[in-house]
Amino acid sequence: KNRQYLQQHEIFALNIISSPGSGKTSLLTATIDALKDQLDINVIEGDQSSQLDAERIRNSGAKAIQINTGKGCHLDAHQVGHAIEDLNPADKGVLFIENVGNLVCPAPFDLGEAYKVVMLSVTEGEDKPLKYPDIFYAADLMIINKTDLLPYVDFNMDKCVEYAKQINPNLIIIELSATKGDGLSEWVQWIKAQRTLKAV
Amino acid sequence: KNRQYLQQHEIFALNIISSPGSGKTSLLTATIDALKDQLDINVIEGDQSSQLDAERIRNSGAKAIQINTGKGCHLDAHQVGHAIEDLNPADKGVLFIENVGNLVCPAPFDLGEAYKVVMLSVTEGEDKPLKYPDIFYAADLMIINKTDLLPYVDFNMDKCVEYAKQINPNLIIIELSATKGDGLSEWVQWIKAQRTLKAV
Repeated sequence: KNRQYLQQHEIFALNIISSPGSGKTSLLTATIDALKDQLDINVIEGDQSSQLDAERIRNSGAKAIQINTGKGCHLDAHQVGHAIEDLNPADKGVLFIENVGNLVCPAPFDLGEAYKVVMLSVTEGEDKPLKYPDIFYAADLMIINKTDLLPYVDFNMDKCVEYAKQINPNLIIIELSATKGDGLSEWVQWIKAQRTLKAV
Repeated sequence: KNRQYLQQHEIFALNIISSPGSGKTSLLTATIDALKDQLDINVIEGDQSSQLDAERIRNSGAKAIQINTGKGCHLDAHQVGHAIEDLNPADKGVLFIENVGNLVCPAPFDLGEAYKVVMLSVTEGEDKPLKYPDIFYAADLMIINKTDLLPYVDFNMDKCVEYAKQINPNLIIIELSATKGDGLSEWVQWIKAQRTLKAV
């Protein structure tokens, strides 16, 4: 039902999934900065508790609604449906759904998004695709974030890409630093290109 | 049942919980290095998939069993009970239970441990206690890991401690770097002291 609504209104929706602290909100504020003059941007924020992320998003200039899941470990389509109603996003816009920080539970839940985006930061280690395969299998795009910290951590980028492709050969991979901006244009270009493709 | 067995055999068990990639396994290999000549150490490793962590632990000189949870997002007492049977740990030893990387789902599950230890790394941001309060409330000790990366990330230690104490005023907090060794002795001393206390 969410997908049908979003398609009718040509709203391009991404479901963004990562561990707590991988940088989902930082990526979104940087993305909003890059796109807000061109596109209507709406954000649904999922967390167990607090309004912190929705506030950060609103400060960056997009509309945001926070869903607090309480004991819940992921967002579901019903919660997202209500949030879409409340946000009432403009036609042809972009909707980012920032899931609860969790590499396990959000994997099997379809929220009506066009694509699932899994994010991993280089501080988390290159072995995560092998340890949490379901989400890397379910995702269409993988973002490897915090590349600015590569000099200070023991992270093998080639192995990470190899493990991810082993789980999901079709996974598209973008390396970037949300806080420093390196690689961000590739992500922004991907959003623009996919949004156009999906609208055809 | 697990707790009764562990108490009878004077085995000091800790349930270690964090996001994926916060450094649980690195902390354990460093801890095993520090304690293996003094204590019998056993480790139960939880992950959705792979044997990677159990292999790392065995290479560091402790006995380890890997539990693969498949779709599961946390360990349960039944799984841990079977793993304890298989490990057959010596009396008066230490048992580390490394839970599946997840700040949400392991919080309400009692595995029979003496204490729950929650770990957060400085790369994840200081706001996590407010966003994932259940686990910070349920834990007895909080480890703030990767302090060697503090110069390169935007992390407010005072705020982190304040937020954590706001959720759980009794939380003991230890700052350390598992890979560089700073602060590790405080953690090792805590284990030794609590082990003695619990055995009385």
